[in-house]
Amino acid sequence: MTAAPYPAFEDFVPGEITTFGAYAVTKEEVIDFASQFDPQPFHLDEEAGRASMLGGLAASGWHTCSILMRMMFDHFMDGSTSIGSPGIDEVKWIRPVFPGDVLSVRRTILDARPSASKPDRGVVRFRFELMNQKGETVMEQTNPIFFARRNQDAA
Amino acid sequence: MTAAPYPAFEDFVPGEITTFGAYAVTKEEVIDFASQFDPQPFHLDEEAGRASMLGGLAASGWHTCSILMRMMFDHFMDGSTSIGSPGIDEVKWIRPVFPGDVLSVRRTILDARPSASKPDRGVVRFRFELMNQKGETVMEQTNPIFFARRNQDAA
Repeated sequence: MTAAPYPAFEDFVPGEITTFGAYAVTKEEVIDFASQFDPQPFHLDEEAGRASMLGGLAASGWHTCSILMRMMFDHFMDGSTSIGSPGIDEVKWIRPVFPGDVLSVRRTILDARPSASKPDRGVVRFRFELMNQKGETVMEQTNPIFFARRNQDAA
Repeated sequence: MTAAPYPAFEDFVPGEITTFGAYAVTKEEVIDFASQFDPQPFHLDEEAGRASMLGGLAASGWHTCSILMRMMFDHFMDGSTSIGSPGIDEVKWIRPVFPGDVLSVRRTILDARPSASKPDRGVVRFRFELMNQKGETVMEQTNPIFFARRNQDAA
């Protein structure tokens, strides 16, 4: 017998606010990600970054989203009853993310609704604020994730 | 003298619809991306994928977003006057993306508005539909991107 998956749908309490994570962004990964997926000059090159609206070599916004996903996984998705997500309600890229930044997450549980059509699951809607080491918010995101309800194996 | 950047803000015509791209998704990159950013079992392992809502080993939604970004870059962002983006209005992950899928993009220009506060730029709002080789829509996305107006160097 393995440990029951945790957290399950029932463990997400609307209104709860938690902070977690300390993700150190490296120049190497900024350039690696951009080279593969978003090779705009300001994501690849210091000088182009300085000349841009970003003010310096900065991570692709999609890289920042992917970093948040990894932080979510490490903090509460790993071992959970997550089934997947239907999408993202909103992403705001508020400030650039620079190599050397150390990112943390402030997670707010907006609501948690059992599925009307599928009684084995529910949808939890989260607000994520990604912050840098100065306490500045660099990204905000609102996203729903499906989680199985507890003891569905036995149901 | 180098060629003028193209396209610029003025080149985006509201209502215009274009399709482009043929991105072949490999199993290796699905697993590579998931290992780094989204190591949920259904993004890493065939068997876990088959047992999941996705029905098979499938790409992380963030990987799918990043692939779309690359297709956008290759088709119209490279060499453009793109300045950056304030965020994403909405992402819908409609169907799973599987290794072996070949993805194309249908781009609709929703609107294009000159900036009221910064006369050197405007914001173009796009609707992107990402489709697989069966013609099924796998993702929809609405996002605004800032582009400099033409001849801003000379302004």
